[in-house]
Amino acid sequence: MHAPRDLPVTAADILGRIRARRPRVHCITNSVAQNFTANMLLAAGAVPSMTTDPAEIREFVASADALLVNLGTLDARRQAAITAALEEADGRIPWVLDPVFVDRALSRATFALGLAARRPNVMRLNEAEFSALAEERPAPATLERYARDRSTVVGLTGDTDIVTDGARTVSIRNGDRMMAKVTAMGCAASALVGACLAVEPDAWCAAAAGLLLIGIAGERAATRAYGPGTLAVGILDTLHGLDQRIIVDRARVGA
Amino acid sequence: MHAPRDLPVTAADILGRIRARRPRVHCITNSVAQNFTANMLLAAGAVPSMTTDPAEIREFVASADALLVNLGTLDARRQAAITAALEEADGRIPWVLDPVFVDRALSRATFALGLAARRPNVMRLNEAEFSALAEERPAPATLERYARDRSTVVGLTGDTDIVTDGARTVSIRNGDRMMAKVTAMGCAASALVGACLAVEPDAWCAAAAGLLLIGIAGERAATRAYGPGTLAVGILDTLHGLDQRIIVDRARVGA
Amino acid sequence: MHAPRDLPVTAADILGRIRARRPRVHCITNSVAQNFTANMLLAAGAVPSMTTDPAEIREFVASADALLVNLGTLDARRQAAITAALEEADGRIPWVLDPVFVDRALSRATFALGLAARRPNVMRLNEAEFSALAEERPAPATLERYARDRSTVVGLTGDTDIVTDGARTVSIRNGDRMMAKVTAMGCAASALVGACLAVEPDAWCAAAAGLLLIGIAGERAATRAYGPGTLAVGILDTLHGLDQRIIVDRARVGA
Repeated sequence: MHAPRDLPVTAADILGRIRARRPRVHCITNSVAQNFTANMLLAAGAVPSMTTDPAEIREFVASADALLVNLGTLDARRQAAITAALEEADGRIPWVLDPVFVDRALSRATFALGLAARRPNVMRLNEAEFSALAEERPAPATLERYARDRSTVVGLTGDTDIVTDGARTVSIRNGDRMMAKVTAMGCAASALVGACLAVEPDAWCAAAAGLLLIGIAGERAATRAYGPGTLAVGILDTLHGLDQRIIVDRARVGA
Repeated sequence: MHAPRDLPVTAADILGRIRARRPRVHCITNSVAQNFTANMLLAAGAVPSMTTDPAEIREFVASADALLVNLGTLDARRQAAITAALEEADGRIPWVLDPVFVDRALSRATFALGLAARRPNVMRLNEAEFSALAEERPAPATLERYARDRSTVVGLTGDTDIVTDGARTVSIRNGDRMMAKVTAMGCAASALVGACLAVEPDAWCAAAAGLLLIGIAGERAATRAYGPGTLAVGILDTLHGLDQRIIVDRARVGA
Repeated sequence: MHAPRDLPVTAADILGRIRARRPRVHCITNSVAQNFTANMLLAAGAVPSMTTDPAEIREFVASADALLVNLGTLDARRQAAITAALEEADGRIPWVLDPVFVDRALSRATFALGLAARRPNVMRLNEAEFSALAEERPAPATLERYARDRSTVVGLTGDTDIVTDGARTVSIRNGDRMMAKVTAMGCAASALVGACLAVEPDAWCAAAAGLLLIGIAGERAATRAYGPGTLAVGILDTLHGLDQRIIVDRARVGA
């Protein structure tokens, strides 16, 4: 896939591969997000694992199909686990960086900058987090330069999501504002991008597919939800039930 | 507000301020409760943060609007985080103490007594926890003396909630018994009191408003729930949708 | 109870005792599963506690009615907690071992083998986990020999659950395949077995009852669910509402 207009069919194809191959995504993620993230991966057809113990993590990562590194509720033990996991992954296993709340604490920002320099296949973040890391506002040209300079894919989420590898850029206008009222929604989106990376070598496609799938699932769930409680539950149901027809009908993507 | 009869309108006003100002409540809370607590805060219009790492916690607390200290799944690291957080808050940032299961382990009770002496703006607890801390049964006069002697507000939850600062006392008879079948319901109530404290300087009003809001939300959710699963989901929906009319119609408060 | 055909009535009776006595099950379980496990226990009528701090765990275990030891997200601290908890339980308090993902990391398998040698009243595991521990495929005769040799009850879950103490064996064909799409479903089943052990001294009956109850609750919830999100919520509702008539009508058990 090279053009944004091909994204819906590509995303449906990637979802089909996840369901067929059941890739395992090892998630080093914050304690608030673990349960919802695991359920999101299962709803998509993937398999989660979550240990962060230094004694175990290398074996879990070595046999995983993708890795998620999320910086929420970060501490020294989790930092050691991340370092060990990335040594183990080392170019063989694709990984997603989610620098949660990197705009809130200097120590976390410093650690995140070191991780960003290790070339994550995808970085999934919001505007405040991008601004804290890049020290610039996330204008499209800035995102593209950032991605190109670091050989990564940036997936910026907000009212409109933007996914760029520096050469190719797609914007996704799916989703619903109430998704911001469900904790760990962004964390779970990053995990879903990890599942896509596990079955799709083109990281730009994988990132765009992951964000499109969660956007469509969230927007469909929102039409039936009574509030953020039923939305969180419903997005697991709708993701589980997504098919190519729905994805193609609902996708709102552009250059 | 000085009279219990004014509580419903005051609570609606406080909820409006939470939605308008979106205060951040930093929660040092147990691992069982983190997800539900974060979702409860978001449903009310507030913003949660949850890190407990000693290296980060001061920055997170310094920029927060209120602090929750919950003693569930307590350990040495979390104790250190609590100590650092309270030094940082130090009279500038209001805080709620939730001494979960303080009746179950002596070491936890000892630590909790030290915290109670540091004048939390509000203590939210149940009968067993109060009895363990105060070494007395929670009769109304006992609660009032306890609050007065410690310059705190006591919010005792049970079939009837009682909120007192020693001079003013209100009882709240909202809620539903099935709420006790949802884990972390009390923890989330304490977090909601934290959100109220973030926008309301009178701690007695804030505590009473928080417990009234969760009581009404829970009771409305219970009328539509098929059991504790749909109740936990529904209370997030109903809290998100509460307005002054519902609050005034449903409140059952007294002196 | 000695014959599989008596299981439905026995399970209903055990559930009635849980509701009447409200036993506390102390759970040393992984961070992904804690919230769902606590809600499952509450929905059944039991009371959860979850601390893993070495300074507190002995007091929590000493006053508990059953203990769950789950190896998910294992680390050195949790291993120390498990060791202390088992010393405290020491034949007085029944316990369930759930060796989650023991097939994924050698260090975890080694630790699990040591625990299996300490005679858990029940071991609840899936095929991959059994094969990793026993170094044999889980054929019925193998399960029976394993249980007999170790004086334990094996509860193997899968499309058909098999529960054996070496002398008595029952198979349970309740449940729904979508239950595998909800994280921590197996962990919560183990906790429910713990609640049954708290009120039923015959560990084979307790294990079979726990797996039958969750199987029937899950299968009923699945008929009304739109996907794994509503299934996870619905199983808490249906477990809370189970009664003897439903259990007897729906049970599919055999020798």
